[in-house]
Order: sequence, then structure tokens, then C-alpha cells
Amino acid sequence: MEILQTAAGLQDRTESWRRAGLRIGLVPTMGALHEGHLQLVRAAAQENDVVVVSIFVNPTQFNNPEDFRLYPRLPETDGALLADTGCTALFAPTVEEMYPQPTLLRFDFGTLERVMEGAHRPGHFNGVATVVSKLFHLSRPHRAYFGQKDLQQVAVVRQLVQDLSFPLELVVFPTVRETDGLAMSSRNRRLSLEARAVAPHLYQALTLARRLVDEEQTVAEVQRQTLDFLRQQPAIELEYFDISDARTLQPLAPEQPANGPVALCLAAWLGGVRLIDNVVVER
Amino acid sequence: MEILQTAAGLQDRTESWRRAGLRIGLVPTMGALHEGHLQLVRAAAQENDVVVVSIFVNPTQFNNPEDFRLYPRLPETDGALLADTGCTALFAPTVEEMYPQPTLLRFDFGTLERVMEGAHRPGHFNGVATVVSKLFHLSRPHRAYFGQKDLQQVAVVRQLVQDLSFPLELVVFPTVRETDGLAMSSRNRRLSLEARAVAPHLYQALTLARRLVDEEQTVAEVQRQTLDFLRQQPAIELEYFDISDARTLQPLAPEQPANGPVALCLAAWLGGVRLIDNVVVER
Repeated sequence: MEILQTAAGLQDRTESWRRAGLRIGLVPTMGALHEGHLQLVRAAAQENDVVVVSIFVNPTQFNNPEDFRLYPRLPETDGALLADTGCTALFAPTVEEMYPQPTLLRFDFGTLERVMEGAHRPGHFNGVATVVSKLFHLSRPHRAYFGQKDLQQVAVVRQLVQDLSFPLELVVFPTVRETDGLAMSSRNRRLSLEARAVAPHLYQALTLARRLVDEEQTVAEVQRQTLDFLRQQPAIELEYFDISDARTLQPLAPEQPANGPVALCLAAWLGGVRLIDNVVVER
Repeated sequence: MEILQTAAGLQDRTESWRRAGLRIGLVPTMGALHEGHLQLVRAAAQENDVVVVSIFVNPTQFNNPEDFRLYPRLPETDGALLADTGCTALFAPTVEEMYPQPTLLRFDFGTLERVMEGAHRPGHFNGVATVVSKLFHLSRPHRAYFGQKDLQQVAVVRQLVQDLSFPLELVVFPTVRETDGLAMSSRNRRLSLEARAVAPHLYQALTLARRLVDEEQTVAEVQRQTLDFLRQQPAIELEYFDISDARTLQPLAPEQPANGPVALCLAAWLGGVRLIDNVVVER
């Protein structure tokens, strides 16, 4: 596995791979890798000739400077974890390398980012779309791999790819969970023992909500019972729990049962750490 | 010269050119070609192995539906004009081909589009950035060619390329003028005989302004004398005349002489046709 730290170095490499007719897979990450990331890398290695994994904690997608400062950075561990996955090149640039001058351009994804993460983290998806566009242009992937854990990010990147005709295919993998149901996340490392013990209630709440949706309860009733369940855990400070159209991410009408594929999405704070999770119910 | 009408067809062609190691030049146009366009195509043919010329009257960059409807469309003439220029492929898609579904994403270029064309044509540069991004992704050019006639468009596209790390080089050519000084433009075809006779006063006004800048008159004085000159032509309805920093396009302070490279830019209506022109003064 080769380690590349400059944009020009990565571009040279991917240009020559393209010229040699090799299929390129890209797995963009912010590091602090876990099994969810590694599944993406192994899938990319199976489906392509070469695989680029990027590790870059992107400042422009953090609305909260403290969150950016505390985001886990574990370059040695990450390198060791990637060794057996089929990763061809690890791209680990500095902030100055990715943003040599200030960015003027801003993206807006309309209704897609007026809800959930977009509503609670102003500018987040502008930062995501900017860095993903840069990584796509530097890596020239045939396929790019994302996890469903970041459901709204996947929706925004899908819109970006469609609206600007990026010549690549998005591949989305299901959320990988710990044995107690907690969605794997780099931020889990920051949980205290107490917060870690309570954290599985987030997925339990989503599982309850899924059952209620399957029972054709009204959206308002699913909302009420799920919030009641979460309120029993005072250590969980819920930011939102949204019941949405899984394609548009817009909230569903409260008075009737959910119709069509439903996204059940939440964000919550546990002892100063913000976690998100979601479940999609096909109907 | 091959004619391509589908995005997939163009993408296949440029993919195989890239794989063969050929250098690709792109000249994006809205057709109704004139000598300004043809100079770009001939330059692209000299500096690259293959040249894509796109002809697409892009609806998303027209804020005025009447302007879109009346924009000249001359596919046969355009094809004949391109025959001897070294154009390898003419890409002439339909609107449905370029926009198979509604676009949610919107671009904002901040201060760069709060002035001049951006201020007077709301949404114009969002449309430009969207279609240029699509054309870049479909054509995969090593170099893309633009005319300085659209000075603010060049600035926006340059920002787009920098901010999203598009892997290509922008090449900008000077404005080509008729013998009486009128900047060549596809919209000139729509001028009445009377309006055509008055139109050279736009460039005469810019030439006057350039002389005053060279004489180190204050920005306010350049503005005053240029507006006085234009006011003598009642057939010219001035929309704006801006004296700006040529890099940021922001207006210069009025009380002192211009310092650094200056962009002198104007837009005006002549009998229902809107024309723009500019001159850049290096200082």
C-alpha cells in the first residue's frame, strides 16, 4: 500500500491508472477506521482493480470547531488496519494541500438539506459536497463507496453526482453495528463508559419505531412512542427524531401511517458526543 | 467531424481518448458561432490531439425566458463553420439529455456574483456553473477554452475549477471585435440596422474609460465622463458601467485613481437586445 500526501501525486497516479484501463474504487473517510469502513474497502477491492482510501478530517464540514478539534485521529492504527484490505493507495493530505486558497463557492441542496443534519449543522453539506467533489476529481473513481449510516450525506452526494453528471457510480453499504446494536462510528471512541452503556438505546428506539411503522401506526403515534422510549434514558439528549420519505428526506404527514419507503433518523448527544443513526423501512 | 447528441456517447468517446493518451480540448459554446468562437476552436486544435465543441443553449443560465426563446440557433451554419477548424467532435445535446431530472443543487459564488451580470441576471452563474461542470465531466478535457468577452463568467469558472479541484487548465482568449470595434457576440445578429449603427459606441466608451484610467483620473471621474459619453446616444440604455478590481471584480473606491489591474465592464440594451463588453487595463 502506497501512501500519497499531495493532490498532484494522487492525480498523477489515477491518471496513469485510467490510461492503463484499470477500474478505480474510492473510499472517502475521515479516518479512525472501524469495521464499517473496512467493509467498504474490501468491497471496493473486490469490484475494482485499484482502491484509493482517503483519510481527511475535513474542516469545512464541521460547524462546531470543538467537534473538529476532538475528532479522533489515529494515523498509525488506520494504516495497520488498511494493510490487509486490498487498499492500493492511502491518500492522507493536509488541510493546506486540500484547500490551498479560500473557497468562495458554496453549494445549496435545497429541501434536501433543510432537514436533519443539514438543519442542525449549518454549512455541513456544503463542506461535504466541496470535499467530495475534490476527492472525485483527484481520484477519478469508477465507483465511490459510502455507508448508509450517513443517510442524508448519501442523498446529498447522490444529488451532487446526478446534478453535475459526475462520471461514476455510487455504491452504498448497510450500517455495520456492534453486537449490542450500536451503529459503528469513529465518534464512539469518545464515549465515556456510562455513555457507551446507554448508547444502544438509540438503535433500540429505531427498532421500536420500525415495528410501529410495520404495524401501520400513524406517523404521529410512531413519533410519540419512540420519544417516550428515549425519554426514559435521561443520559440521552435527543436532537431530532424524524420520520421521512426515504427518497426526498422530507417529513411525512403525521395523521396517517407511513406510505412508501420510510427513513427513521435520529441524532442525540450522550455526554458531549453527538451520534446519529437511521433505519430505512421498505413499504 | 463527428456529431454526438447523447451524454453517454460523448463520455464513451472521451473515455477512450483518455485511455489512448490523447490530449482533449473543450470549447463550450451556445452556438450561433462567430470568429471569436472559431479562434478558440483553432487554438484548441493546435494545443490538443482532439477537440470537442459543445453547442447547447443552456436554459438554466437564462433568467429571461424571452431571451432564451430568441437566442439565435443556427445548427447548419454552425456545422459548416466548424468543418475547417480542427473540431473532432461536435456535441449538440437536447435539453432533456443534459437535464434528465430537475436539478436541486445550486451554486453561489459569493461576492464574485453580487456584481454586474450576477446582480442583473439572478441565477445566471448557477446555470453557468452547473452546465460547465456537466460539460467538464462528460468531456474530461485537459484544457477548456473561454473568451474574455464574458469576463465575469471566466472569473466564476476559474473559481469553480479551483474550489472543486477540476483536473484541467483554463485557457482564456481576448475578445474578437468587428472592424468598427463592436465585440463579436451571437446576440449581434438580433440587432436592428439602427441599433447596429449605434452599437460601436459601447467599445468607444470603454476606450475612453481606458484612456482616463491611464491618465490616472479618479475612479469617480472615469465613471462620470464615460456615462456622459454614453448619454449622448439615446438609443443606448445602459444597465451598468462598473470599474472593478480585475481579480475580485469588486468595485474600486471612487475617490482615487485605479490601482492594480482594472476591469471596465458594461451592459446595455439596444432596441431590445442586451449586449455586454469589457476592457481590462493592466496597471
